[in-house]
Amino acid sequence: MESFTATARRSADVADAVARNPERFRVLTGERPTGPLHLGHYFGTIRERVRLQQAGVDTFLVLADYQVITDRDTTAHVSGHVYGAVLDYLAAGMDPGLTTIFTHSAVPALNQLMLPFLSLVSEAELRRNPTVKAELAASGRALSGLLLSYPVHQAADILFCKGTLVPVGKDNLPHVEMTRVIARRFNERYGDVFPVPDALITSTPEVPGLDGRKMSKSYGNAFALSMTADETVAAIRRTRTDDVRRITFDPEHRPGVSALLSTAALCLGVQPTELADTVGDGGSGELKAFTATVVNEFLAPMRERRRRLAADDELVRAVLRRGNAAANRVAEATLTEVRQAMGTVY
Amino acid sequence: MESFTATARRSADVADAVARNPERFRVLTGERPTGPLHLGHYFGTIRERVRLQQAGVDTFLVLADYQVITDRDTTAHVSGHVYGAVLDYLAAGMDPGLTTIFTHSAVPALNQLMLPFLSLVSEAELRRNPTVKAELAASGRALSGLLLSYPVHQAADILFCKGTLVPVGKDNLPHVEMTRVIARRFNERYGDVFPVPDALITSTPEVPGLDGRKMSKSYGNAFALSMTADETVAAIRRTRTDDVRRITFDPEHRPGVSALLSTAALCLGVQPTELADTVGDGGSGELKAFTATVVNEFLAPMRERRRRLAADDELVRAVLRRGNAAANRVAEATLTEVRQAMGTVY
Repeated sequence: MESFTATARRSADVADAVARNPERFRVLTGERPTGPLHLGHYFGTIRERVRLQQAGVDTFLVLADYQVITDRDTTAHVSGHVYGAVLDYLAAGMDPGLTTIFTHSAVPALNQLMLPFLSLVSEAELRRNPTVKAELAASGRALSGLLLSYPVHQAADILFCKGTLVPVGKDNLPHVEMTRVIARRFNERYGDVFPVPDALITSTPEVPGLDGRKMSKSYGNAFALSMTADETVAAIRRTRTDDVRRITFDPEHRPGVSALLSTAALCLGVQPTELADTVGDGGSGELKAFTATVVNEFLAPMRERRRRLAADDELVRAVLRRGNAAANRVAEATLTEVRQAMGTVY
Repeated sequence: MESFTATARRSADVADAVARNPERFRVLTGERPTGPLHLGHYFGTIRERVRLQQAGVDTFLVLADYQVITDRDTTAHVSGHVYGAVLDYLAAGMDPGLTTIFTHSAVPALNQLMLPFLSLVSEAELRRNPTVKAELAASGRALSGLLLSYPVHQAADILFCKGTLVPVGKDNLPHVEMTRVIARRFNERYGDVFPVPDALITSTPEVPGLDGRKMSKSYGNAFALSMTADETVAAIRRTRTDDVRRITFDPEHRPGVSALLSTAALCLGVQPTELADTVGDGGSGELKAFTATVVNEFLAPMRERRRRLAADDELVRAVLRRGNAAANRVAEATLTEVRQAMGTVY
C-alpha cells in the first residue's frame, strides 16, 4: 500500500489531468441501495458526479445491490431504494444519456470477474483491508464470505468497464488500492488487459446530520432528497438545540445548533461562522426557521424535477434497462478479453 | 455437519432411489482440467458417470477451469487439458446428447451465484472446510481468496442446475455438506428455490499409481487414457518392482508389484490376489508383460474411439459450444429465479 500522502499527491495531479482532458477518463462510482439518498450524498458525491459528467467524463454509476447483503440478511427494501436512488440521481442532474446507471445483479459478466480476481489476492490481504475491518466491526456479526471478498467485488466494479478514475472519500481509499493491486497482478500474469485506476479524493467536508454526527441513513439524522418541504421543516424542528440566544458555531459543545448552521452554509455556499453572525441573537427558533427556508429553497428545483420524473411510472425501469444493457455489453467485451488472455476460450 | 455414518446411510438410500427412478435425478459432476485423465479417473468416476447417464439420470459435467487457479498461478495448459478431457469422456461413453458438458468460464450466470451464496456462509465456516484445509496444506502457499471460496463455487456448480445428486469420494463430502447448508439457508431467507442435493458416495476402491501411491497426474504415476499402447508398455516397464520370483499381493512391502496387480485386476474385474496366483512364479517380468497386455486390451476400444473422434478437428469445439449454450440457458433461468426471490429484478 502506498502512503496516503503519495495517493493524495497523485489525486491532485489526476484532478488537473481531468480538468484538461475529461474525455480521456472513465469514472466508476456508485452506492449501496440501503436507504434513501440524502443531502450528505448530494454534497459528498452526487454534486461531484454531475460536475464530472458535465465536464465530459464518461461515467458509470452502479447501484450495488449485492453489497447490501455484506452486512445484513435481507434484501427486503432494496428494490424501493434502487428506484428512489435513480429518481434522486436524475433530479440532481445525472443524465442517463451521458451516464450508464446500472445494478450489480443485472450484469453477470461483471460478477464473473470475481473468480479470476479472487485468485490474485490472499485471504490475509482481504482481512487486512481497513474497510473490511471497519465494516466488520460496525456490523457486530461474524465475517461473511461476501464481506471478506467485498474489496474484490469492488475491483470487479471498477475494472469491468476499465474505469480509470474512482472518486472516493479517504475511508474508501483501501478499495482503490486493492483494485490497483489486482489490475497490476492480472496484467503481469496474463497480459495487459486493465488500466490501473486512480483515486480522485473528494474534498467536500463531511456533512453533519441533525444531531451533529455524520449524516447517515442508519442514524436517522438525514434530510432525504425525497422529503417534502413540510417533512423538512418538521425534521428541523425536532433537532435538539439549546436555549442560548446567541447562535455560535461550536460543533463540540453545540452539536445541534452547529449542524443546522453547517447544513444551511453548504446550501448557500458560505461558511457556518458567517451564518452564525447573520442569525446573531435570534436563538434556536430563528435558526431553525432560517435553516428550513434555506434547505427548502435549495432543494426546491430538485424536488420539482423529481416530482415530474416520478409521475412517469416507466421512467426508472427504462433508465435501468438501458443502463443494464450498456453495462452488459461492456462487461461481456471485457470478460471476452479476460478469457482470451487466460486462454480459456474453447 | 452431519456425521459421516448418517451421510453414508443416506447415500445408500439415494442409490436405491436412483436405481428405481433415475429420471427423477439430476447429477452434477466434473473435473479440474489440470492434466490428462487417467485410469484412476476412469475407474473412480467416469465409469460411474456413464452408468448413471445410461440409466437415464440427467447429467451435467463441468470442466472447472477457474478451479485450476485455486492453487497455482497459471492457466497455461488448461485449454489443452479441456480438449483432451472432452475426447476422453466421449471415448469412454459420455454422450453429449444425454450429458451437458460445459466449462465454468463460459457460464457467467452460474458464476454470479457466488455473490448471494458468499453472503450465506461465514469466513470461519469456509476456513474450517476440510477440503480447503487439505488443499491449502498441499499447495504450500498462502490461502488465496479463490481457494477459500472454493466450497461456495462448488455450491454454485451444483445448485445452478438444481442438481439433486453429487457423486463424490469421501474426500469431497464436505463440499456437498456446504452446498446443502447454502441451499437450506437461501431457501429459508428468500423462499424455496433450490433442492437440497444428496451425495452419492462412490464405492470404487482407490486406484493405485505405478509407484503404489494414489494414481495422480501430479505424481507422474498414471496411465493417461490418451496414451498409446507402446507408451503404456514403456510406463509399465519403468515401474519399480523387485527380484522376488513369486508374485504376491502385498501393497505395503511390494508397492510396485501390487500396483500392477491392482491395475490389471480392475481392468479384468477380478481380485488382485487371484491374479497373483495366476502369474505365480513368473516374476516381475512376466507380471509386467501380463499387465501391459491386460491394460492395452482394456483400453483398446476406448483408444480406437478416441482416435476416430480426434480426427474431427471441430468435434470438441462443437460439443463444448452445445454444452455451454445449454448450461447458460439453465443458469440464466436459475439466476432469474434467484433475483426474483431476492427482489432484485427492476
